[in-house]
Amino acid sequence: MPYELHYWPMIQGRGEFVRLALEDAGAPYIDVARQDDEAGGIEPMLDRLTDPANPRPPLAPPFLRDGDVVVGQTAAILLYLGPRLGLVGTSEADRIWTHQLQLTIADAVDEAHDTHHPLGVGLYYADQKPEARRRAEGFRAERIPKYLGYFERVLSANGGERLVGADLSYADLSLFQLVDGLRYAFPKASAAALRDTPRVAGLHQAVARRPRLAAYLASSRRVPFSEDGIFRRYPELDA
Amino acid sequence: MPYELHYWPMIQGRGEFVRLALEDAGAPYIDVARQDDEAGGIEPMLDRLTDPANPRPPLAPPFLRDGDVVVGQTAAILLYLGPRLGLVGTSEADRIWTHQLQLTIADAVDEAHDTHHPLGVGLYYADQKPEARRRAEGFRAERIPKYLGYFERVLSANGGERLVGADLSYADLSLFQLVDGLRYAFPKASAAALRDTPRVAGLHQAVARRPRLAAYLASSRRVPFSEDGIFRRYPELDA
Repeated sequence: MPYELHYWPMIQGRGEFVRLALEDAGAPYIDVARQDDEAGGIEPMLDRLTDPANPRPPLAPPFLRDGDVVVGQTAAILLYLGPRLGLVGTSEADRIWTHQLQLTIADAVDEAHDTHHPLGVGLYYADQKPEARRRAEGFRAERIPKYLGYFERVLSANGGERLVGADLSYADLSLFQLVDGLRYAFPKASAAALRDTPRVAGLHQAVARRPRLAAYLASSRRVPFSEDGIFRRYPELDA
Repeated sequence: MPYELHYWPMIQGRGEFVRLALEDAGAPYIDVARQDDEAGGIEPMLDRLTDPANPRPPLAPPFLRDGDVVVGQTAAILLYLGPRLGLVGTSEADRIWTHQLQLTIADAVDEAHDTHHPLGVGLYYADQKPEARRRAEGFRAERIPKYLGYFERVLSANGGERLVGADLSYADLSLFQLVDGLRYAFPKASAAALRDTPRVAGLHQAVARRPRLAAYLASSRRVPFSEDGIFRRYPELDA
């Protein structure tokens, strides 16, 4: 049975961290909401979120279905998939450390999102542009260098090419996606930060060249970045 | 060897979710930064965060030391402690579901924090008061009811008293803390929301009555809520 990923079909969003793991592993999966057939669309996702017969409902997409198991929360999905896809070490120490890194990447992703929605998700960007400029200022000046500097330090302490051990982990894939998103949304600020974090920049390039990932990134399965997602290119926020 | 918790000593903050687990389990631990002796204070914490000899450094507190293992990120710490403290089920399905709930609680905690810091952590509250009012408005009207309504649904589907299975889990303790914080910071809005979520309100009361927890909450080990923590009582944000 292929895995089923349920997520909004028009954006990379948080679902992308799961897609990258499934794609790099070559795992069979169905991106349900992006299917054209009768079983596709967002209805199955919305049904499952509100299904009164599901005693363990996720609060929001993305969620993964693996037979009877339904797992929500991006980091929890990767915690579940990691051992199954060979994207995490076998020791408890490696697994908890990989997960810790994933949660730190998730914090950075949340902050990237909040640059364009500082007043909350209930308002449009157009209704919070001055506030977004102020929030983005601190994100560019302090937070991007802090996060990328941290991952640079972790990479350096582990030989320079991987976050954990000798093999690729889901945290490496997620760090690729964080960097990819920052480069899209904040091309100037991220270029400056990446000059100071060559190992992070190198990991981003190396992941993009992995055969399965390169094929995925060049395919229509990779949703383009856009101003509906987490990482948005608003030039005024990268000034 | 007792566990070592490293966290800012003057606030409950994210460290509190770890303290509650350790206290409810009756686990031996040292809240290092709150010790008066020479080995106490925040220096050991800061040293460990910056120690170049630690190849797996947390980005920030809280972190837990268990012998040679150092675990950062609140949810990862609870993932690590859960099985050791008997605060999570034994099946993988129960463990991943408990963790998923923990991550959803963490999202709510992040949003509670952002009500007073919508423009970021680099600015004081005094520098973002109008923005905080706008952000808090949506948090009170939409987000508190959404989160508490979700946990009400999860409790209902599981018999009404626990989030997962028949026994208390770390997610129950964390939901107690979320509710306790919301009641402190937003007394009016949370009272209204809790009237619609009686099982969440009941869990909050039941956890507070657990013997070890009640003793802890009445002790000086429980740092009081304050306007330096995540949950802050600014009446203008609960208007």
